[in-house]
Amino acid sequence: MKLDFPRYTERLGAVSIHAVQRIYELDSGKSKGFLTSHQTIKKFDYDEISNLLHDMAIVIPLKEERLKLLEGVLSGIPNECLVIIVSNSPRSPVDRYAMEVETVRLLGRFMDKRIVMIHQRDSAVGSILKKLKYNSILDSTGHVRAGKAEGMVLGLLIAKMYHKDYVGFIDADNYVPGAVNEYVKIFAAGFGMASSPYCNVRISWVFKPKVRNNSLQFSKWGRVSETTNKYLNSLLSSVTGFETDIIKTGNSGEHALSMPLADCLHYSSGYSIEPYEFVDVFEKFGGILPSKYPNVVEKGVEVFQIETRNPHFHEDKGKMHLNHMLEGSLAIIAASSICPSDLKRALRDQISQITGVKKQKKLDHRTRYPLIAPISTVPIAEFAKEVRENAETFYRLGGLK
Amino acid sequence: MKLDFPRYTERLGAVSIHAVQRIYELDSGKSKGFLTSHQTIKKFDYDEISNLLHDMAIVIPLKEERLKLLEGVLSGIPNECLVIIVSNSPRSPVDRYAMEVETVRLLGRFMDKRIVMIHQRDSAVGSILKKLKYNSILDSTGHVRAGKAEGMVLGLLIAKMYHKDYVGFIDADNYVPGAVNEYVKIFAAGFGMASSPYCNVRISWVFKPKVRNNSLQFSKWGRVSETTNKYLNSLLSSVTGFETDIIKTGNSGEHALSMPLADCLHYSSGYSIEPYEFVDVFEKFGGILPSKYPNVVEKGVEVFQIETRNPHFHEDKGKMHLNHMLEGSLAIIAASSICPSDLKRALRDQISQITGVKKQKKLDHRTRYPLIAPISTVPIAEFAKEVRENAETFYRLGGLK
Repeated sequence: MKLDFPRYTERLGAVSIHAVQRIYELDSGKSKGFLTSHQTIKKFDYDEISNLLHDMAIVIPLKEERLKLLEGVLSGIPNECLVIIVSNSPRSPVDRYAMEVETVRLLGRFMDKRIVMIHQRDSAVGSILKKLKYNSILDSTGHVRAGKAEGMVLGLLIAKMYHKDYVGFIDADNYVPGAVNEYVKIFAAGFGMASSPYCNVRISWVFKPKVRNNSLQFSKWGRVSETTNKYLNSLLSSVTGFETDIIKTGNSGEHALSMPLADCLHYSSGYSIEPYEFVDVFEKFGGILPSKYPNVVEKGVEVFQIETRNPHFHEDKGKMHLNHMLEGSLAIIAASSICPSDLKRALRDQISQITGVKKQKKLDHRTRYPLIAPISTVPIAEFAKEVRENAETFYRLGGLK
Repeated sequence: MKLDFPRYTERLGAVSIHAVQRIYELDSGKSKGFLTSHQTIKKFDYDEISNLLHDMAIVIPLKEERLKLLEGVLSGIPNECLVIIVSNSPRSPVDRYAMEVETVRLLGRFMDKRIVMIHQRDSAVGSILKKLKYNSILDSTGHVRAGKAEGMVLGLLIAKMYHKDYVGFIDADNYVPGAVNEYVKIFAAGFGMASSPYCNVRISWVFKPKVRNNSLQFSKWGRVSETTNKYLNSLLSSVTGFETDIIKTGNSGEHALSMPLADCLHYSSGYSIEPYEFVDVFEKFGGILPSKYPNVVEKGVEVFQIETRNPHFHEDKGKMHLNHMLEGSLAIIAASSICPSDLKRALRDQISQITGVKKQKKLDHRTRYPLIAPISTVPIAEFAKEVRENAETFYRLGGLK
C-alpha cells in the first residue's frame, strides 16, 4: 500500500487530526523503499502490513444482513486478522443467528480463518456484564441493549480478551470484497504511520455510487455525512478560533481504534457512536477540560482519515435510517460540554427541522443516547473466563481457544 | 489468495480445460500451509504471488476511456507488475493520447510504477512491423489496424521485449480498483497452479451488476457470454461426444497467457479475440488436426477459469457494442475447420438473427475477422531496438529502459 503522509494537521490540545490522505497503490509489493526518494509518500510492503494485521481484530456488527454479503465481506478480510462477528439478528420465529453460525461454519472449512461469533442478546453475556458491574451497556431486562454501538463495544471486549492491539469495524452490507480488503489494509497503514499508541483510523470514501435515473452516479458525499462533518468542524473551529473543514469522516462506519485508545473512550449508543468518538476525544484530550488521562495527553491522540480507492457500493437503507443517523449525530454534538451556546442553538434548529418536533426547552440527549462506560472498567480476564464457560452463543472457529 | 483446486477437467487431445474455480480468500496471509490438512484448496501466500507478479506484464488496451477510471485501474495493479498501456485513442482534433500520457506521467510520480505507453497507430510502429514482415497486423496504409485485438497483440510484443513470462489483459473501464487487484492475483494463482508452461487463465465474474428499475440487480451472465459459451461448449461436445457446460469464460476480456503459449497462438481481430483463443487451442492442440507444435502437445495446454469474489462494475457500452461482440464471437466459431456442419448451420441462423441479414451462401468470416500471425514470427530483439529508437509515442516510466 502506498499513500500520502498527512499533508496538514489540525491540533487541539493533545489531539492531532490529520487531513484526508490519498492511496496511490493498493499493493506496493514486497520490495522496500522507493527507487527515487519520495519523502512525502509512505510505502508499506506486504510484510509490514502483515505484521500489523496479526495484532488486529475486525469486528462485524450483524443484523439481518444477507448472508451472501457476509460471505463476501469475510472473503475480503485478510487471513491474519481475527474476525469477531457480533450478531443482533432475531432468534425467533426463525433463528437467523443459527443460520449465520451455520453459514460461517461452512465457510470456515474453506477459509481456515480464525472467527469468533457471539449473539449480542445472549442472556449469559448480560448476566456476566452485570456481575462485573458494566451496567451502562445493559437494558432494564439485564441484556446488552440492542443497538449497533452496543454490539461494537461487545466486539471490543472480545478483541481485548484475545489480546489484540487494534480493532477495526466493518459493516456487513458491503457488495465489494475488494473494498473490504482495502479497508483492513488502510487500518493497518494508519496504525503503522501513527507515532502515538492512542490512534483512530477513519475511512473516507472516494465515491458512494447511487442509482439515479437508471444509471450509476458517483457522488462523493451523502447528506448525513456532509451535515455531521460541517457541525463537527464548527465545534473544532469554535475552540481553535480558525475555521476548518478538516473533518470528513464524522459518520465513517468503517473505522478502527488502537486498544489503548479504545480502553479510555466512552461510547454513544445507536448510530451516533462514530461522530461521538470525535466529541469524546475533544472533551477528554482537547485541553479544554481537565483530563483524567495524563498518560494519553503526554503521548497524544492521532486521528487519521484515509480515502479509499474503491467506491463504496452498499445496501441502501432508506431515508428513515438516514434521518435517525443524522439526528443522533447532531444531538451528541449539541450535548457536548464543550459545545458553545450559539452552535447548540443551530444544532437544535437543525434537529427540529429533521424530526418535525418543535424546539424542546431542554434536550434529553443523554436519555435517548446513553453513554457506555470505557471498556477498561471491565476486568477482562474474568470476562473471558465467564464468556468461555457460560455464553451459549459463543462460537470459535479455526482452532481458537 | 485461497482457491479451489480444479474439481473437474475436460480433456481434448493435449488441452485440459478446468472447470470454474472459486476463491475463498483474497488475502490468505504470509503463513504457509493450512492449520489442518485441506488437500482440495490451494493457498498462495504473499511471497509466492509476489514472485509470480515479478514476471508478469499487465496490458491495458485503451480507447477514450475516462482518465479517472484508468487512474483507478492503475492503482489496483500490484507494483511488481510491468504495466503496458496500448492506446488507440484519437489524436485529433484533441490529442487524447497526450492527455493520457500526461495523466499517467503525473500518477507515475506518486505510484513509482514501471509503466510503458505506446500508441497503436504510431506510424513508426507500423513501419517497423512491416520491415519485420509481420503484415497480418497491418492495414492497407501500413499502420497497425485500429482493433482491440491488434492493440493486445502489440502489448504482447512489448511484454516479450521486456522478457516477461506472463501477460494479463485488463480493460480500462473498471469502476473498482479492488477488483482489478483481484484479477491480477487470480492470474498469478492460475499460473502458479499450472503444471504446463502453456497456460491460459480466464476470469469468470461472480456477478455483473446491472441497473434496472432504479436499483442494482446482481445478474450473473450477460446474453453475449451465455450464447458464446453455449456454442463453444457445443464445439467441444461435438468432438468428445459428451455434452458439457464447462466453458464459462468465452468472452472474458480479463484473461492472461503464458508467454510460451502466447508465442504460438493466432489472434482473431476485433472483439472475437477472446473466444478465438479457445478455438485456436482446440484446432492446434486438440488432437483433431495434426499439430505443428509437438513440444506443446507433449507438455499439454491448460486453461483455468477462476471466479472472482468481486462483482464486475464496468461502463455500459450499449447494445450495438454487444451485438458486434456476439456476432464476432459466433462467426469465428463457425469459421473453424473443426466445426461440424450442423453446428455451422445453427451458428449461421443465429448470426442472421442478430444482424438481420439473410443467410449468406458462403460466410466471409476471414475477411471480416482476419487472423493475426503468432508473435513468435517477430524477431523480438530487432523489434525492441527499433521501437526504442524510432517510435515517437513510446514512453517509459519508473526507470525502465
